[in-house]
Amino acid sequence: MYGFSTQVTGTFDDAVSKVIEALKTEGFGVLTDIDVKATMKAKLNIDGRPYRILGACNPPLAHRAIEADPDIGLLLPCNVVVREEENGTITVAFMDPSAVLKLVDKPGIEELAGEVRGRLERVRDSLKG
Amino acid sequence: MYGFSTQVTGTFDDAVSKVIEALKTEGFGVLTDIDVKATMKAKLNIDGRPYRILGACNPPLAHRAIEADPDIGLLLPCNVVVREEENGTITVAFMDPSAVLKLVDKPGIEELAGEVRGRLERVRDSLKG
Repeated sequence: MYGFSTQVTGTFDDAVSKVIEALKTEGFGVLTDIDVKATMKAKLNIDGRPYRILGACNPPLAHRAIEADPDIGLLLPCNVVVREEENGTITVAFMDPSAVLKLVDKPGIEELAGEVRGRLERVRDSLKG
Repeated sequence: MYGFSTQVTGTFDDAVSKVIEALKTEGFGVLTDIDVKATMKAKLNIDGRPYRILGACNPPLAHRAIEADPDIGLLLPCNVVVREEENGTITVAFMDPSAVLKLVDKPGIEELAGEVRGRLERVRDSLKG
């Protein structure tokens, strides 16, 4: 297990907008946005379902992380996947920072990861409403 | 250990260009590019050294990964960090897909991660030249 998720209703684009808004309330900006469906169509001519990877970053927490371990950018930002399932429901999945940052053996990282995880869990919970 | 790295000479911008070119020869496009120095300056008014996070993606391999586990986008793309050290040297660090994708317990992922890792190691080796 390296993530946690929830299901949301409505259109795919609405779901993406809702996720971006909810991330903002917990101090995360979206620094990257990969449209996997469009990329696979353009590069491989494969038609897939809507799938986006949003890269969420809370600047003060990211700064603390990089200060603790300059290589940690290899594991940033925290990805949030919004994807449409075969039955049309929309899944929003969050990278679990506590699982991923377990790879980093530096003082303070576990606590930091727990703080980021708590914020992302609140984002998930707010989407359920 | 969740990455491997090398040092390169020349200017920071040249290093970034060289990395992007070297990734291309192994079939990786750069889908995301985070200028951490600029982000920290803009958001926190902190002056740091040059630091970029490039998100490298090999579309056929990424497609296989997502087919094997739809949540795997949480761990994609493969990040490459280019950063300037205090003494002015430039480090290029690569996420080790074999370490990170160990979090994913699905058939075929270990082999796939090994293939991506082999390609990224060749990119690293080509930068040493």
